[in-house]
Amino acid sequence: MALLPPLDDAALSPEARAVFDDLRATRKTDYVNAFWRVLANDPPTLARVWASVKEVMAPGALDPLTKELVYIAVSATNNCNYCMHSHTAAARAKGMSEAQFRELMAVVALANQTNALANGYRIDVDERYRAPLA
Amino acid sequence: MALLPPLDDAALSPEARAVFDDLRATRKTDYVNAFWRVLANDPPTLARVWASVKEVMAPGALDPLTKELVYIAVSATNNCNYCMHSHTAAARAKGMSEAQFRELMAVVALANQTNALANGYRIDVDERYRAPLA
Amino acid sequence: MALLPPLDDAALSPEARAVFDDLRATRKTDYVNAFWRVLANDPPTLARVWASVKEVMAPGALDPLTKELVYIAVSATNNCNYCMHSHTAAARAKGMSEAQFRELMAVVALANQTNALANGYRIDVDERYRAPLA
Amino acid sequence: MALLPPLDDAALSPEARAVFDDLRATRKTDYVNAFWRVLANDPPTLARVWASVKEVMAPGALDPLTKELVYIAVSATNNCNYCMHSHTAAARAKGMSEAQFRELMAVVALANQTNALANGYRIDVDERYRAPLA
Amino acid sequence: MALLPPLDDAALSPEARAVFDDLRATRKTDYVNAFWRVLANDPPTLARVWASVKEVMAPGALDPLTKELVYIAVSATNNCNYCMHSHTAAARAKGMSEAQFRELMAVVALANQTNALANGYRIDVDERYRAPLA
Amino acid sequence: MALLPPLDDAALSPEARAVFDDLRATRKTDYVNAFWRVLANDPPTLARVWASVKEVMAPGALDPLTKELVYIAVSATNNCNYCMHSHTAAARAKGMSEAQFRELMAVVALANQTNALANGYRIDVDERYRAPLA
Repeated sequence: MALLPPLDDAALSPEARAVFDDLRATRKTDYVNAFWRVLANDPPTLARVWASVKEVMAPGALDPLTKELVYIAVSATNNCNYCMHSHTAAARAKGMSEAQFRELMAVVALANQTNALANGYRIDVDERYRAPLA
Repeated sequence: MALLPPLDDAALSPEARAVFDDLRATRKTDYVNAFWRVLANDPPTLARVWASVKEVMAPGALDPLTKELVYIAVSATNNCNYCMHSHTAAARAKGMSEAQFRELMAVVALANQTNALANGYRIDVDERYRAPLA
Repeated sequence: MALLPPLDDAALSPEARAVFDDLRATRKTDYVNAFWRVLANDPPTLARVWASVKEVMAPGALDPLTKELVYIAVSATNNCNYCMHSHTAAARAKGMSEAQFRELMAVVALANQTNALANGYRIDVDERYRAPLA
Repeated sequence: MALLPPLDDAALSPEARAVFDDLRATRKTDYVNAFWRVLANDPPTLARVWASVKEVMAPGALDPLTKELVYIAVSATNNCNYCMHSHTAAARAKGMSEAQFRELMAVVALANQTNALANGYRIDVDERYRAPLA
Repeated sequence: MALLPPLDDAALSPEARAVFDDLRATRKTDYVNAFWRVLANDPPTLARVWASVKEVMAPGALDPLTKELVYIAVSATNNCNYCMHSHTAAARAKGMSEAQFRELMAVVALANQTNALANGYRIDVDERYRAPLA
Repeated sequence: MALLPPLDDAALSPEARAVFDDLRATRKTDYVNAFWRVLANDPPTLARVWASVKEVMAPGALDPLTKELVYIAVSATNNCNYCMHSHTAAARAKGMSEAQFRELMAVVALANQTNALANGYRIDVDERYRAPLA
C-alpha cells in the first residue's frame, strides 16, 4: 500500500490536472500510471518530475529506446520494483525485444559483479584514464 | 592502493598469461588495464570474469556501444570510481560522443531520482504491468 | 514471511521481556511492533539495538521529529519497506504533517539525483570544502 | 579528475551563464562550486537541476536547515564524497552546529543498521502500518 | 510476477536442459529453484551463471558454509528478497544453525552501521593500512 | 580529509579515554585506528559503537575470522574504502590467508551479480522457501 494514495482524476488539483493533460497528450494515451497518481498528491513535485522526464527522455543524441534501457539498468541496480515493471513495459512499447531485454539484464548483472570487484579490491585508476573525456 | 597488487606481465601465472593473450587479441591492443592485472592474482577469477565479459559484451541483440552505456549507468549508480573511468574510456573508443555521455548521465540521474520516489512512497505496481514480458 | 518468526509475549526470554517492558514504558504504549518481535529471537541483539535506538533517537541537539525525518530519508534511499512504513507512522505520531512528508520525499529524491551526478561525473571536491567542520 | 572539466566563467554558454547569474543572486555569493561548473558542460541539465534545487530546497513546510540535514543523510547513505563535503558546508552556513552534525551522523548510522536488519530478516509490515498516511 | 516466466522442464532448450542436468547432479536433488527457471529463458546466461556458481561456491580455501554466509551477507546488504530466502535455505542445508544465522545478521547490521559512519565522515585510511595485503 | 578531525590521545574527553583504554586492553595493542579517533569527537557514539563491536565481533556461534570475512563482504558491497582497508588488515591479523581473501572477493562479486539478476527479473520466491528458518 503506497504511503500516499494514487489519486483518480476527480481528485486532482488544477495544477495536477494540467500535468496529466500534458502527459496524456505527450504519450498519446489516456492511461496515467500509479507513479504519477501518487505524485499528484504533491503537485509541484508532479509538475517538476514530469517536466524532467519529458525533457530528459525525449529523442536526442540517444534514442528513446536506449534511454529506456538505461533506465531499466539503473532500476535493476537500485532494486526498484515499481520502476522495473513500468520501464520494461515502456521499453517494450518502444520496441525492446525480449532478446534485447535478456542481454540488457546480462550486462547489468555483469557490471554489478565487476563493480564489486573494482570497489572491493580498491583498484587504482590507470594513469591513462585520468583525464576528462572532453 | 589496491588490496592486491596489479601484476606486470613477468609476474603472471601461465593461466593468467593465457587470459592476457586472449584479451590482447580480442581487443586488438597490447594494453591491459589495472582491473585485469589485479584479478591476475586470482587466475581462476581472472579467467572466469574475462570469459563472461568477452561473451556478454560481444555484439548481439544490443550493439557494443549500447552495452557500454548500460555498463556506465550501473557503474554510476554503484559509485564505482574505477569502472566510471575505464568504461567511459571504452565507450569513447566505441564511438560515444560527449553529447551522448551527457544525455546518459542525465538519464541515470533522473532514474535515481524517480527510483527514490517509487521506492520511498512504496508505490504499488499497476495491474496492467503485472505480467511477464514474454 | 520473515526469516525468523515474530515472537508473542508468551514466547519471550526473560532478557527479551525486560527489553519489551522498557520499550513499552519508554514509548508509553503497550504495542510492540514486528521489528522488535523478530529481533526477540536474538535477545542480545534486541537489547543492544533497543538501547541504541533509545539513546540515539532521544531529544538532543536535534529534536525527535527531525531525527525521524532523517530516518525516513535513509530508509527511502535504502529501499527498506518495513522501515518506511514504521518510521512514517512514528513521524506522524511525532507531528509530521503530510506537507512535511511530501517535501521530505522531494528532498530525498533530489539528493539521490544529484548524488548520482556527482558520483557519476566523479566531481572533485572544491578546495574550500576540504577541511574538517570543527 | 572529473569526467567533464569544471568550466570557468569565460567558458560558459549563454544558457549556463544565465543559470550562474541566478545561482549567484539566489545564494548571495559570487562563488559557484564545482558541481555546477561540471554540469555547465550540459546547459539543459544545469538549468533543470538548478531549478529543481532552487525550488525543492526553498523554505516550505520544512525549514532549509532540516532540508540540508536530510540531504546529508542521503549523501552519507549513498557514499557521495562530493555531496558530503558540499552539503555539510551548506548546512554549517545555514546554522548546523557540530553537535547537530554528530547527532545526524549517529541517526544515519543507526538507520543503516536497522534497515539491514529489517531488509535482511524480511520483516513483514505490521497490519496497523498498512495504510496511506493521508 | 517475474518479468520472464520460470520455465518448467518441458519448455527447456537443449542447452538449458543440459545445465539443469548438471545442476541436479551437482546438488544431488531433482529440485530446481525459480532463479534457474527464470534464467532458462536466456540459455547462455543460465550456463554462464551456473558455471560461475558451481566453480565459486565449491570447497576451496573457504568451506561451502562460510561461502553461503558471505552470500547471505551480500544479499541482506543489497536487500535481495529472493536471495535471502534461497541462500538461507541453502545455508541451513549446509549446516547453518539458527544461532549462527542470528550472529551473521548482527554482524551484517553492525557493518552497515560502521560503513555509514566511515563513508559519512569520510575517514582517511590510516597510513599503516595503505599497502597491498600480498 | 575527514569531516571531523581524528583526535590524538591528549584531546580525548574522559569518556572517550575510557573507551580507548578498553579498546587497547581488548585488542592487546596500543594502536587506535582513525575510525575510533574520529568517533572520539562524539563520545556517546564512540562508546555505543565500540560496545557493539566488542559484543558482536566476539567469539560465539561464528568464529572471529568468519565474522571479519562477513564484515569485508558487506564493506565491499557498500564500497566502503576505509572499512575495506581496516577490516582486511583485521582479518589478516586473525589469520585470513591471501587465498581466502581471493575466494571471499569472488563470492562477493558473484553474489552481487546474482542479486542483480534476482532483483532485476523480480523473481518470485519458491513456495518451499516461504517459511521461517526456525
